Amino acid sequence: MQVLMGVGKAGLKREGKPDLLVVLLPQACNASFLFTNNHFKAGSVIYSQKVLEKSRVVRAIVINSGNANCGVGKEGIIHAELMAKRTAENLDIEEDQVLVFSTGVIGKPLPIDNVLKAIDDACNVLEPLDIKRASEVISTTDSFPKYTFVKTGLLEVYGFAKGAGMIHPNMATMLAFIFINADLDPFTLNQLHKEITERTFNSISVDGCTSTNDSFGIISLGVIKEDLEKVRQALHQVSLDLAKKIVEDGEGATRIIKVVVKNASLELKARTIAEKIALSNLVKTAVFGRDPNWGRILASAGSTAFPIDQFKLKLYIGNHLVYDGKPHLKAVQSAKRYMEENKEIEIVLDLMEGKESWTYYTSDLSYEYIKINAEYTT
Amino acid sequence: MQVLMGVGKAGLKREGKPDLLVVLLPQACNASFLFTNNHFKAGSVIYSQKVLEKSRVVRAIVINSGNANCGVGKEGIIHAELMAKRTAENLDIEEDQVLVFSTGVIGKPLPIDNVLKAIDDACNVLEPLDIKRASEVISTTDSFPKYTFVKTGLLEVYGFAKGAGMIHPNMATMLAFIFINADLDPFTLNQLHKEITERTFNSISVDGCTSTNDSFGIISLGVIKEDLEKVRQALHQVSLDLAKKIVEDGEGATRIIKVVVKNASLELKARTIAEKIALSNLVKTAVFGRDPNWGRILASAGSTAFPIDQFKLKLYIGNHLVYDGKPHLKAVQSAKRYMEENKEIEIVLDLMEGKESWTYYTSDLSYEYIKINAEYTT
Repeated sequence: MQVLMGVGKAGLKREGKPDLLVVLLPQACNASFLFTNNHFKAGSVIYSQKVLEKSRVVRAIVINSGNANCGVGKEGIIHAELMAKRTAENLDIEEDQVLVFSTGVIGKPLPIDNVLKAIDDACNVLEPLDIKRASEVISTTDSFPKYTFVKTGLLEVYGFAKGAGMIHPNMATMLAFIFINADLDPFTLNQLHKEITERTFNSISVDGCTSTNDSFGIISLGVIKEDLEKVRQALHQVSLDLAKKIVEDGEGATRIIKVVVKNASLELKARTIAEKIALSNLVKTAVFGRDPNWGRILASAGSTAFPIDQFKLKLYIGNHLVYDGKPHLKAVQSAKRYMEENKEIEIVLDLMEGKESWTYYTSDLSYEYIKINAEYTT
Repeated sequence: MQVLMGVGKAGLKREGKPDLLVVLLPQACNASFLFTNNHFKAGSVIYSQKVLEKSRVVRAIVINSGNANCGVGKEGIIHAELMAKRTAENLDIEEDQVLVFSTGVIGKPLPIDNVLKAIDDACNVLEPLDIKRASEVISTTDSFPKYTFVKTGLLEVYGFAKGAGMIHPNMATMLAFIFINADLDPFTLNQLHKEITERTFNSISVDGCTSTNDSFGIISLGVIKEDLEKVRQALHQVSLDLAKKIVEDGEGATRIIKVVVKNASLELKARTIAEKIALSNLVKTAVFGRDPNWGRILASAGSTAFPIDQFKLKLYIGNHLVYDGKPHLKAVQSAKRYMEENKEIEIVLDLMEGKESWTYYTSDLSYEYIKINAEYTT
């Protein structure tokens, strides 16, 4: 009992590489999907959300890359529906158990005939799911494929993703799909999914911009019964691993920045401050310059609605205590060497007031980011 | 009856330029001051806020540039108090009618003896206020002085400011001071001040970061009685002019971006969406690349909590209608030329649903921004 996939070419990528992926599940499976909150969304997202409103059961997914099917008027929704219909016909399954995803350039109509033809081809060459290859097919400007696998005892969780910036130069989107062999009812699956997403995909940022096509799904293959805590841990691990790969592949990134806010009085406070630091262009350019600029970090930390006590908190870069009411200049010097020598830079803000913590991942902001985003033209 | 100023040197700027300014008002004046909301604030801000809690009447202000008096522990507050005390002694005025401002590097203790000596010097060389010179004295990394003057009938409003980024490479701060000859009671002045600030200084951004020292004051010199609507218009004009100069001098800026969201159902909606577009790194890099990237603009507009109708709205770049449910490729081409040829780029999003509008100013995001912010080291 296997997950199958088929690959086709619709000519959507400039280099003529495979750009269409069909994934067929062994049977109708419980699934939970989360989509972008952006109100400017792709036709494919609008369509798949409508399908999921009726039922949380999925049999197949079809994904095209190279074209976001977004900003093209209501035609985009019709095209998504045609893709689902054609997939269902080819595989002899229910049309309303097929989800549609798109990623790529915004504002160009899908060449729907080519896409439908590629669906026919893909459905004719089904083979066991290869998560590395699947990631390659759906990738756009990604510089490496993103996939991961966890096995503990009988429990197996694997997934693949694409994304290298929340909105890449018009090559919109983060897409991530995770498969788990444990049997999870729709409600439990959805609860777990939302909880895990907050601490993983919703706690990463390359440029603070949400895309028109972002989608993240978990599919329960229903093979084994497993302890819920084990399931949670394995799903968290796979989600975090995929999320971190997207940050690592962030546009122009030379460093991963891990921002930890700890000992806050409220979880929301820890999260809000961690996010504010991670989204600060000044912090991101400082890391690119290998500059342990504690002033910028604290100014970001102080700029949310939550009060911080500048005379009590402690700030570490790596394990170097750079500030605790006053700066420590020697530690700042050693922090600079730490930033030069390490690929993942940890910033830890200890608020010294409570027990809640949050971790947020981002990348640094480099000349290459400007190059990628300014020199790409529509 | 004149506003006087005195200039001194405390050796806080590398080049040894004047870095201390004392402004003496002809009498105790009604004043309204707004400060950064940042919780990581300078000792000078904490001190001045405390003074203003007791009374809204100001006789003198003292400003040092080159050192933010921030991140140095509670000593920063004591130093600010010493500055006020010394100014009051020199000028024979009330200590609690003196406000203190600082701008410059974060985390270095003020060399307080030098600063006090410079205050003595400045108080000894009082001359009529020269707003250009005043701006030069308080500037740090500004590339030009920022001052403006409006006269309509008997009404005179003038001001000076500094700032080139909400937090410049540790050279923290936007400072702005406006003087108006109209007599305004404290309550009216404060109401006007808050209202005008929202549409001017609170509607500009270079990098979305608030500083530790930001301060903006309006001082009523109490000479003439004037119609409130005229006062409002003149204050708005002077505030907007100073605010736009700060954007124009934004780090690495090559274009001013004016984002107008109009015909929204709610003012807050217009404002939130305008701000989201203006803060988007993807929009800012697109403008730097002279790329009329409507997809990024709409994706930013769609990423707030307020719904937008992608099938109804209209998007203009300059007066080129680039999107109204579908993109218009010819208009996109002419918008590109418009972006190449103009210094101020207008983005107008018409939500086609109500009557509220908001305008937000920002600058583009260039290689130079990265250079300034990454290559500066602590």
